[in-house]
Amino acid sequence: MSVLVVGTVAFDSVESPFGKAEHILGGAGTYIGLSASYHTRPIHLVSVVGEDFPQEHFDRMTSHDIDISGIEIVKGGKTFFWAGKYRDDLNTRDTLDTQLNVLADFSPVVPEHMRDAEYLMLGNLLPSVQMRVLEQLHARPKLVVMDTMNFWIDGFLDDLKEGLRLTDVLTINDEEARMLSGEYALPAAAKKILEMGPRYLVIKKGEHGALLFGEDQVFYAPALPLDEVVDPTGAGDSFAGGFLGHIARSGDISFENMKRALIYGSAMASFCVEKFGTERLVGLTEADVNQRLARFTELTRFDL
Amino acid sequence: MSVLVVGTVAFDSVESPFGKAEHILGGAGTYIGLSASYHTRPIHLVSVVGEDFPQEHFDRMTSHDIDISGIEIVKGGKTFFWAGKYRDDLNTRDTLDTQLNVLADFSPVVPEHMRDAEYLMLGNLLPSVQMRVLEQLHARPKLVVMDTMNFWIDGFLDDLKEGLRLTDVLTINDEEARMLSGEYALPAAAKKILEMGPRYLVIKKGEHGALLFGEDQVFYAPALPLDEVVDPTGAGDSFAGGFLGHIARSGDISFENMKRALIYGSAMASFCVEKFGTERLVGLTEADVNQRLARFTELTRFDL
Repeated sequence: MSVLVVGTVAFDSVESPFGKAEHILGGAGTYIGLSASYHTRPIHLVSVVGEDFPQEHFDRMTSHDIDISGIEIVKGGKTFFWAGKYRDDLNTRDTLDTQLNVLADFSPVVPEHMRDAEYLMLGNLLPSVQMRVLEQLHARPKLVVMDTMNFWIDGFLDDLKEGLRLTDVLTINDEEARMLSGEYALPAAAKKILEMGPRYLVIKKGEHGALLFGEDQVFYAPALPLDEVVDPTGAGDSFAGGFLGHIARSGDISFENMKRALIYGSAMASFCVEKFGTERLVGLTEADVNQRLARFTELTRFDL
Repeated sequence: MSVLVVGTVAFDSVESPFGKAEHILGGAGTYIGLSASYHTRPIHLVSVVGEDFPQEHFDRMTSHDIDISGIEIVKGGKTFFWAGKYRDDLNTRDTLDTQLNVLADFSPVVPEHMRDAEYLMLGNLLPSVQMRVLEQLHARPKLVVMDTMNFWIDGFLDDLKEGLRLTDVLTINDEEARMLSGEYALPAAAKKILEMGPRYLVIKKGEHGALLFGEDQVFYAPALPLDEVVDPTGAGDSFAGGFLGHIARSGDISFENMKRALIYGSAMASFCVEKFGTERLVGLTEADVNQRLARFTELTRFDL
């Protein structure tokens, strides 16, 4: 049940109506890894940072049994940096700064001991970079999950479509699903996207939950109505981490189990947003996670 | 289990990306009545129309066992008219025309045989008009459900708050809940609103479903992901009709049963939006409704 994640490791500066946090640990790979680590361990991470990346951030990862030997440290390089500000509704954010730095020339090298991964998470990255990871594996993983974004749909559609043919589960948001398919209604959008390759499509709707399409079925996982949402950064990646972590632990890629995985993902995302950055994703207990999961059952259970 | 509904009966002209319909039957009272009629009968309706209101529209109502003896026909008057246009996302609509006509001076008179109603639905109207209905009843109903809107929250807050003290269930949308409470997070908004009087709060989120708050619990009913949404007009009222219809039929106002009622409401709303106006709300069979309800179970059921 070896899990391989490729994704950014970054510095983030985030401002929300509830405060700000400067130059904190961020990146899709980080959130996915920390979140998945609550469900299966170790998590093998392939990424890149600069020489400015501090030991304490590596320590945070290794304390969660994240194998950082696949994180390249570029000599003299600077770590990818993103700064953004959330508006009052927390649903919209403005990017204030993006410095690709070492990410600009990132060509992932998967260490030999990670090349037999059974579960692969392709975090949001240039589609051709995502594919370079898949190509290095000894065999096709049992499950390939891909995240992507509007930027790649817009400017790198051919590469993305090539990747989609090799992907089992695509996770995107509702706007991106509409953009990629050209269909407004989500069931119609899902139908078109599933024809592009993936067997399953997860449409993330932020505070409105997530939908799973596949095998002519559809499942809806709500987001937990939270008393306090402080910083939505990383919620989608935490969702992906919980999703894949649960699947890897159970070794079950059926639709039934993927429904459960959506709930695990939603639970991890609900933690993520309660504090800035990765603060809420460290030090959770098994009881914390189980309690959160139980709230999803309470929230949705009815008998007709 | 007598059900009394007060609400508008109107002519609507609606334009959506999928076409247009001119001068069709509309109004909150109409949608609530038709929708509730699938669950309990008769439905007693108190409303007002002008002399221009055609017999065929009355026939549509009576064919659903809606008691129209409480609909005042104003001599020489014109029926309330609303025209609106939905934008491409179907979530936003622009009002093109509103002609209050007979609604401007509407002072509801509840016929004697309706004054023992056990279940009362106060459709969206001027708060003082809603209260005039409640005042005429012989005894306090078993359950009073109130719908309202931003316009009354903004301009008639004192009257509205007086009404809320006599209301058991308030149904509003997420924006209105934030507006009424001054809180952004929905659980915090719900807490404040429940302190204003209602024992239960239903927050309608359109295509994102509905939340039920009360008794320190929360329940989430999703909206069905639909292949085709043609006209969202009346969806909220169809929801309210299904909600109250189920509660009235079962005679059970527990939180558990209200959860079920949310699913019934969501099912009726999902029919409503599939065609223009009330077209989809007539002629449904019991099998149609049951099939639709079953889809909600499929959509949300998981086992951890």
